[in-house]
Amino acid sequence: MAARHFKQMDFEHWDRFYRANFFNSLGGFKSLNLLGTRSASGQENLGLFFSVIHIGAHPPLVGVLFRPHTVPRHTLENIYDTKELTLNAVSRGMVRQAHQCAAKYERGVSEFEATGLTPWYSKAHKAPYVKQSLLKAGCTFVEKQHIQANDTILLIAKIREVYLEEKAIAQDGFIHHEQLQTVSVNGLDAYYTPKLIERLVYPRPDAPVKKREDD
Amino acid sequence: MAARHFKQMDFEHWDRFYRANFFNSLGGFKSLNLLGTRSASGQENLGLFFSVIHIGAHPPLVGVLFRPHTVPRHTLENIYDTKELTLNAVSRGMVRQAHQCAAKYERGVSEFEATGLTPWYSKAHKAPYVKQSLLKAGCTFVEKQHIQANDTILLIAKIREVYLEEKAIAQDGFIHHEQLQTVSVNGLDAYYTPKLIERLVYPRPDAPVKKREDD
Repeated sequence: MAARHFKQMDFEHWDRFYRANFFNSLGGFKSLNLLGTRSASGQENLGLFFSVIHIGAHPPLVGVLFRPHTVPRHTLENIYDTKELTLNAVSRGMVRQAHQCAAKYERGVSEFEATGLTPWYSKAHKAPYVKQSLLKAGCTFVEKQHIQANDTILLIAKIREVYLEEKAIAQDGFIHHEQLQTVSVNGLDAYYTPKLIERLVYPRPDAPVKKREDD
Repeated sequence: MAARHFKQMDFEHWDRFYRANFFNSLGGFKSLNLLGTRSASGQENLGLFFSVIHIGAHPPLVGVLFRPHTVPRHTLENIYDTKELTLNAVSRGMVRQAHQCAAKYERGVSEFEATGLTPWYSKAHKAPYVKQSLLKAGCTFVEKQHIQANDTILLIAKIREVYLEEKAIAQDGFIHHEQLQTVSVNGLDAYYTPKLIERLVYPRPDAPVKKREDD
């Protein structure tokens, strides 16, 4: 095993791009979602986020991390102002448009117009969805947590409605993202298509691990 | 497009397993890591986590979400007591052993012994690593945030050392997890091998999206 050992002193000596690439990719594969918001004055915004996490199922909650100095804050400001956002899964055919949404456009420029993605509105929700996305969730702001160690914000939102292709839903509620061609990301710029290995039965201390038969 | 529309009332009427599967898989593909800890009395513990997120690169910080009622708390208690943990990437050949680490073993049972994964110690760190893992990071506790909406804990830890196969590190610091055969997970039990589509150049408002030439 040709393993390298890196210590705190190495981290300090790396240039900031090397360090950012290394630690952004260390934890493993991430989800990516386009977050749609609208400002108080009605300006549409679409941001690319690698930091949406599952917080809970009942009530259905998601968390989104905002890093003040590296990510444009339009999305966060809009959520504070209007309390609404949408999550839109990114599928294989949308990768380059989604990536372009991370460019630092000025306030007043809509990433929808800049990238050719299409805003779409539901009856119940004021924030724009991405029409092309095959899994859309409309969320409302619940709370925020301030992480002191590096001045980041974890925003918590509640899911109030979901639009999803029926064929991707398994009998037990599991969403087969591979049937939506949803992609994964690692680091800041590497996109992946995941292939299912297997679903496993619920683990119990005294039972062997095995594949689910019903899926 | 045969999209279904689900509302809050639907979520309420689902049984709890359906709801858990649905919302755990909604956000997309996740990382998975084995977290190694040791209790104050020296008992080794290994837990499977789908909720490790990148918090920042300088200082290098990760976050781990703990859901009080659904996840055994031995890992969290050990971190409070000893301030140390390890992150260990799960590769293709370790999937079933990793999954089995999520079984609810009683206090006093080591998941290392139960699954056949091997504890390994570095000179600097008191928490056990998983010898078989090809990407290991030793971390120390920094702070915790209490998410009030559903009584979960976000724990923040600082990375102090990393053991990593040299071949997986790109010139710019990016870690090619596919070269380590690191897997991804979705929902509670579905494991995936991601395949690289492409790395893209840094997005700029006035430049077209394109593939990185240097990777």
